Amino acid sequence: MKRNGNIDIFALHPTQILVLGFAILILIGALLLNLPIASQNGQSIGFINALFTATSAVCVTGLVVVDTLTYWTTFGQVVIILLIQIGGLGFMTMGTLFALLLGKKITLRERLVMQEALNQFSFSGVVRLAKYILIMTFTIEGIGAILLSIKFIPIYGLSRGIWYSIFHSISAFCNAGFDLIGNFRSLTPFVDDVLINMVIMSLIILGGIGFVVILDVMQKKNFNKLSLHSKLAITMTLILISVGFFVILILEFYNPDTMGQLSLKGKFLSALFHSVTPRTAGFNTLPTDKLTMASIFFTIVLMFIGGSSAGTAGGVKITTTGVVIATIVSVIKGKDDTETFGRRIPRDIINRSLAIIGLALGLVILVTMILSITEKDCSFIGIFFEAVSAFGTVGLSLGVTSTLSKLGKIIIAITMFFGRVGPLTVLLALAQRKKENKGILRYPEEKVIVG
Amino acid sequence: MKRNGNIDIFALHPTQILVLGFAILILIGALLLNLPIASQNGQSIGFINALFTATSAVCVTGLVVVDTLTYWTTFGQVVIILLIQIGGLGFMTMGTLFALLLGKKITLRERLVMQEALNQFSFSGVVRLAKYILIMTFTIEGIGAILLSIKFIPIYGLSRGIWYSIFHSISAFCNAGFDLIGNFRSLTPFVDDVLINMVIMSLIILGGIGFVVILDVMQKKNFNKLSLHSKLAITMTLILISVGFFVILILEFYNPDTMGQLSLKGKFLSALFHSVTPRTAGFNTLPTDKLTMASIFFTIVLMFIGGSSAGTAGGVKITTTGVVIATIVSVIKGKDDTETFGRRIPRDIINRSLAIIGLALGLVILVTMILSITEKDCSFIGIFFEAVSAFGTVGLSLGVTSTLSKLGKIIIAITMFFGRVGPLTVLLALAQRKKENKGILRYPEEKVIVG
Ligand SMILES: [K+]
Ligand SMILES: [K+]
Repeated sequence: MKRNGNIDIFALHPTQILVLGFAILILIGALLLNLPIASQNGQSIGFINALFTATSAVCVTGLVVVDTLTYWTTFGQVVIILLIQIGGLGFMTMGTLFALLLGKKITLRERLVMQEALNQFSFSGVVRLAKYILIMTFTIEGIGAILLSIKFIPIYGLSRGIWYSIFHSISAFCNAGFDLIGNFRSLTPFVDDVLINMVIMSLIILGGIGFVVILDVMQKKNFNKLSLHSKLAITMTLILISVGFFVILILEFYNPDTMGQLSLKGKFLSALFHSVTPRTAGFNTLPTDKLTMASIFFTIVLMFIGGSSAGTAGGVKITTTGVVIATIVSVIKGKDDTETFGRRIPRDIINRSLAIIGLALGLVILVTMILSITEKDCSFIGIFFEAVSAFGTVGLSLGVTSTLSKLGKIIIAITMFFGRVGPLTVLLALAQRKKENKGILRYPEEKVIVG
Repeated sequence: MKRNGNIDIFALHPTQILVLGFAILILIGALLLNLPIASQNGQSIGFINALFTATSAVCVTGLVVVDTLTYWTTFGQVVIILLIQIGGLGFMTMGTLFALLLGKKITLRERLVMQEALNQFSFSGVVRLAKYILIMTFTIEGIGAILLSIKFIPIYGLSRGIWYSIFHSISAFCNAGFDLIGNFRSLTPFVDDVLINMVIMSLIILGGIGFVVILDVMQKKNFNKLSLHSKLAITMTLILISVGFFVILILEFYNPDTMGQLSLKGKFLSALFHSVTPRTAGFNTLPTDKLTMASIFFTIVLMFIGGSSAGTAGGVKITTTGVVIATIVSVIKGKDDTETFGRRIPRDIINRSLAIIGLALGLVILVTMILSITEKDCSFIGIFFEAVSAFGTVGLSLGVTSTLSKLGKIIIAITMFFGRVGPLTVLLALAQRKKENKGILRYPEEKVIVG
């Protein structure tokens, strides 16, 4: 690690760089939000709350202990949206990088070591990738902001309308779920607004499906030519959104506290929105705590599944879930191999999927148990929901976040961080991996990114 | 399926025989329990309740809509214990058979077809196996009953004491959890009784670990010489009991509604008992609904994991969980193969483990969602607990069972049946498996039974 007395960051494993980098970003964010000028009441919010908010922003979660509009000053809000943008871009870039390197069977460290040996310190490839992602992100967020401004400028005036459009476009594309609507209302005032719903949902889905898939679709323009990863991610997204839409619509159709009073248009829009948002945007247009028990539990399941790998979404990921479903189908069919879309999913991906789901379940169970000790006044479902929301970096809550004890806040903050950098990534960062090349003859394979 | 106009049961897949056989047994049990002479009030209990009780007995679950002592006549109680004994023996025999056949890479059907071809209809091997299991079961249950009678005869008198000893010995070894203590109290009156606790726990563990492991231990007498399956089952049992003991002890130590008032001996005994019973016996010595929220959630996790394959326990099984843990460790270590105890776990076992856990999670989620619609007055944790208890054929309850609606009872009965015959077995029974032999060169392997 050390060379010439200095820590050599190039000698760190890339996952260690990721974990370290985001920890530092969170710390800087916490210090800024801790300043009195960040709070409207002119007093420091206190370090735990500042740390919680910074973690929630960098990890693009959206769980908030104070209302973003009414508590923070514009300075505070700018810090938050910058943390979201840097966090979101960072995870997307690092995720894409890892995914591409995984495809090429070469680790970043190996590449760096290789470059070092060749005295070629040019990061041209990495820089070009980051540039692509930056351009794509700003393009999509720009279009989103322009579309949102059609509604927001008439409502909030020119300057505040533009600010709202930019803030919510970034927050939606980064799957962050922070909002400036006020009083923890999220997007409930816009429950039956077609434009706002459609723009926000499109941003959520594009951000959540990740750069690799978007690039693949832009290049190939034909579903059959896409990579297995893209096929699986797109199919799972469509299935989960459709299933979620029908389940939420049926369960809430007559619920007087949610959809009951809405027009048919409002019912359809809000059902679609509440199918999209748990994976893992965190906005809501219906009051989450008023949903039926079945919808709440279903939302927990969607939050746990999350979005696509190498994007801004959290959870165990839809591709991981896709691998599990493909494996179940293969086992039932009596096949030894996990097959889907005419391809065989390699064994290490299946092992990895199993490990990710096992670790995620373990983490959620542990956090729920600890919270049920520290937060004695909360209902079990509230705590369970909060734990999964934090792990999946979703940001939906049944109202537990603002009542959390100090210890509870620290636990949720740690859960968001683990949920974001991935339980597996954290562990891989700790353990030095030794790659062994074995000379086994195998059939041709294609990789899927999971986790 | 048909030959000479008759259904040829030998042409059925063994899992189809298993499902059909137990469905018939449940139906016979329900008809008997539906008779007025089964109820102490001289009136038929009604078919839904009779079916629920018969399913609970045959599937060795122990969830009860009426108290076994105070509601049923001796006739009814005898029917129940016979259903438990036949169900328990049946599952143990069938499970062992499948496990042995799996090890020999030949299905029962193939063997039967082979025998048919050779005009050898002698089931000598199968009969000998069933005989072994029968002898072992009656020996263990006999010893259990004699030990229990030391306490039960002084308390309940000679004839009732003997009846209680036999009933509870069978119920414990079969992991059924039915009791004759009265008023839904289960074994709470014996919370600090060393003999009762130790005997019941030993019976639960022996029944839950399965015949294959017991036979293996009796033959080899040396841990290192045991099969991988036995090593994994024994290790996981010890780990889960130890972890469970400490977790329950810490969480309940000062809980005034459970352990708070007990002596240190009572605390240790009840912590141990409540570590053993969720996997998946269903007796309780502490009031389940008075446990802390953290203990209740922890109990749900233990119920989901369950006992060993090819025994009387339910759940996804400890060996399945062991495979998942071994896979997680292997992935973290960067190994492509899942290794444990110096052996490589073959790929199809890992796929199967993934499928079992995926299907089990799916079933529990679905049942919880449906129950939260049909049982509006119950708390979420009560419903979730009930769904997992039914799936794991545990029989613990937070009090939901006796308040279930008719639809709720049917759903729980179906869940018990699915949980018992195994989601995978049911699906395998429906789908005809086609075995393909592929000529891939592989390293030597050893099988583990999962599910
Ligand atoms: K989020
Ligand atoms: K049981």
